[in-house]
Amino acid sequence: MQVTLKETERIDDLQLKGLKLIQDKTGFCFGIDAVLLANFAKVKNNAKVVDLGTGTGIIPILIAGKSKASKIIGVEIQEEVYEMATRSVKLNDLEDRVEIINADIKTIDKELEVHGYHVATSNPPYMHMDGIKNPNDKKAISRHEIMCNLEDVIRAASRLVMPRGKFFMIHRPTRLVDIIELGRKYRLEPKVVQFIHPKVGKAPNLMLVEFTKDGRPELKILDPLYVYGDDGNYTEEIRKIYANEDIGE
Amino acid sequence: MQVTLKETERIDDLQLKGLKLIQDKTGFCFGIDAVLLANFAKVKNNAKVVDLGTGTGIIPILIAGKSKASKIIGVEIQEEVYEMATRSVKLNDLEDRVEIINADIKTIDKELEVHGYHVATSNPPYMHMDGIKNPNDKKAISRHEIMCNLEDVIRAASRLVMPRGKFFMIHRPTRLVDIIELGRKYRLEPKVVQFIHPKVGKAPNLMLVEFTKDGRPELKILDPLYVYGDDGNYTEEIRKIYANEDIGE
Repeated sequence: MQVTLKETERIDDLQLKGLKLIQDKTGFCFGIDAVLLANFAKVKNNAKVVDLGTGTGIIPILIAGKSKASKIIGVEIQEEVYEMATRSVKLNDLEDRVEIINADIKTIDKELEVHGYHVATSNPPYMHMDGIKNPNDKKAISRHEIMCNLEDVIRAASRLVMPRGKFFMIHRPTRLVDIIELGRKYRLEPKVVQFIHPKVGKAPNLMLVEFTKDGRPELKILDPLYVYGDDGNYTEEIRKIYANEDIGE
Repeated sequence: MQVTLKETERIDDLQLKGLKLIQDKTGFCFGIDAVLLANFAKVKNNAKVVDLGTGTGIIPILIAGKSKASKIIGVEIQEEVYEMATRSVKLNDLEDRVEIINADIKTIDKELEVHGYHVATSNPPYMHMDGIKNPNDKKAISRHEIMCNLEDVIRAASRLVMPRGKFFMIHRPTRLVDIIELGRKYRLEPKVVQFIHPKVGKAPNLMLVEFTKDGRPELKILDPLYVYGDDGNYTEEIRKIYANEDIGE
């Protein structure tokens, strides 16, 4: 499928089953976070999945490539970004399984079926609003809690997943206390955490969290994931994740 | 100071400024947890400290040796264990700075000054009550939540520390979600976490937590601590902790 590119856009090869992604060179481009989250999310065959704050659509497209999910909805509030993600879906001929919708997660239960999804995912803005100079800036909206905050994301995930459904999120460990408190508040029990360390001996700077709706309290912390080895290159674990093994079950 | 030993007791040398500890060979003996917690606790000169569920008195005695705290109270519910800890205090001639009291932390504000302490510490029982066959067993009381649970410990710490006072605890990462939720509930904000990993690449099996009474939300995760190296021996970090540098400020 051919699509039209705007002047500031480029097409990146996702190195997975020929999948491609349109990104705006002047906007927020996907990073290792999205790749780690798509790898971490357990998605069963025929699952219905929703990705909150989908941006370029990277997570729905990676999950479509790596799983046999029947339907993956990406929710994006910024119209221009939504429109670009929609073109990426077309570019990959994924319109039958992936749909990007232009909606606000704060009112998502007016748009999508409440408790209709097996899995929710989110790679939300990590940073507080403090010190934001231009709240209309597309990059700032992807990085800072301008359009939605952590509570909005967790509340939306809780509304959308089925009983015993799963929510997978990546965030900063500095927000761990808020993440856990809000998870409990919205009956999303944190069940599995994996800390991502830049290297051995260094504090984690990212964390993956698996919540279960109404799950039984008991947290499992996985073996840590190290991004770089002593040689400054990606570790073998990270290279394996980029090599994109199937995540379907 | 000479003290009398019971038949099942022995005196252990703490390898710190000549300090010694009486332990019951048939009861719960201190482990690396107590040493890590005493090292992690920041105790300023002339501080008043309270240790909740003090057992053999290991933590008050180590803190007395490593800091210039003016007063350290150890609270122990089991009369026999309290009595043994009191003899350890005498054995070390620490009666002017360390006092063990035989009390229940669930009603501790009837015994000790509310909001009268700069620092609280606790190495509480880690395990739930499930499957306990003999709830009178001394070892079981030290390991399982028979006499007090996590909420009792956190509530007591919150009652005893001053505004902006500190609470230092060691516990299992499986209880992280409960620890954080209860901390917030009792206005003890988790500010610093250090995960203890048996070795590089393995999930943490212990965690140190520093709470601040009415602290501002924002968590710092420290660089991880590894207990064993690839050679199966203690790492240099752990050897340094056992070498007992002063922790006074």
